[in-house]
Amino acid sequence: MERVPVLKIGDFLLVSIQVDMEDQIALQLQEDLSERIVQTGVHGVIIDITALDIVDSFVGRMLSTIAAISKVLDAETVVVGMRPAVAITLVELGLSLNGIRTALNVERGMELLARAREEEDLLDGEDDDEQPAEDGTAVTS
Amino acid sequence: MERVPVLKIGDFLLVSIQVDMEDQIALQLQEDLSERIVQTGVHGVIIDITALDIVDSFVGRMLSTIAAISKVLDAETVVVGMRPAVAITLVELGLSLNGIRTALNVERGMELLARAREEEDLLDGEDDDEQPAEDGTAVTS
Repeated sequence: MERVPVLKIGDFLLVSIQVDMEDQIALQLQEDLSERIVQTGVHGVIIDITALDIVDSFVGRMLSTIAAISKVLDAETVVVGMRPAVAITLVELGLSLNGIRTALNVERGMELLARAREEEDLLDGEDDDEQPAEDGTAVTS
Repeated sequence: MERVPVLKIGDFLLVSIQVDMEDQIALQLQEDLSERIVQTGVHGVIIDITALDIVDSFVGRMLSTIAAISKVLDAETVVVGMRPAVAITLVELGLSLNGIRTALNVERGMELLARAREEEDLLDGEDDDEQPAEDGTAVTS
């Protein structure tokens, strides 16, 4: 079975998507990626889509899911290498990449992640929980 | 047409091979890679073959050719992520990866390239020609 490799580079994981994202491959990638995030303790994931001619709603949803999973595991996701034609199509189709940051190329993506990490470190210690209990009961954890 | 992306990361170019290396794709990759080496002025190329189940003589030759081209353009090539089964098959088939360095994963490959670069800097200025003329004639270049 085809499998998309997850490469560790410094404090990031890099995934370069080149094959057609069939259901099974996408699921396997989500699994591999989340395992590697836990295993390596990285705080950033870069997904390169230079090779993709088309980003349809399935791929878009997959990217959003990966970003959401990574977020839960305390890692930010950046999608890099999107072709101009892909960007145009995305907008024309009205597809929005929910919760996904983008950058022009891998290096800019790395910069973005490093900056995001620094900002987060600055905010560290503050409470991130933004859902106040409306009935006034305090939830202690 | 499918095309293998060449990613610039720091002082290296990274190529992750995931698709079957047909003739046309291999040629395109050689062209893209050599153009990027010249364009970016990097001194190292890392080729990740984690996704490959099989390295046959065609792929082996392609890797050797890429290494040779990069060498001429003053960049070292390291192949990383070879699976144990691939290594076993290579040896059993008697295929040798001529002029190719290997490393376990991308990070070790980056270390190897950085070290190779340092050594080269130390030797800089000395003559690398290691073939002494046995008949005593000096070859000046």
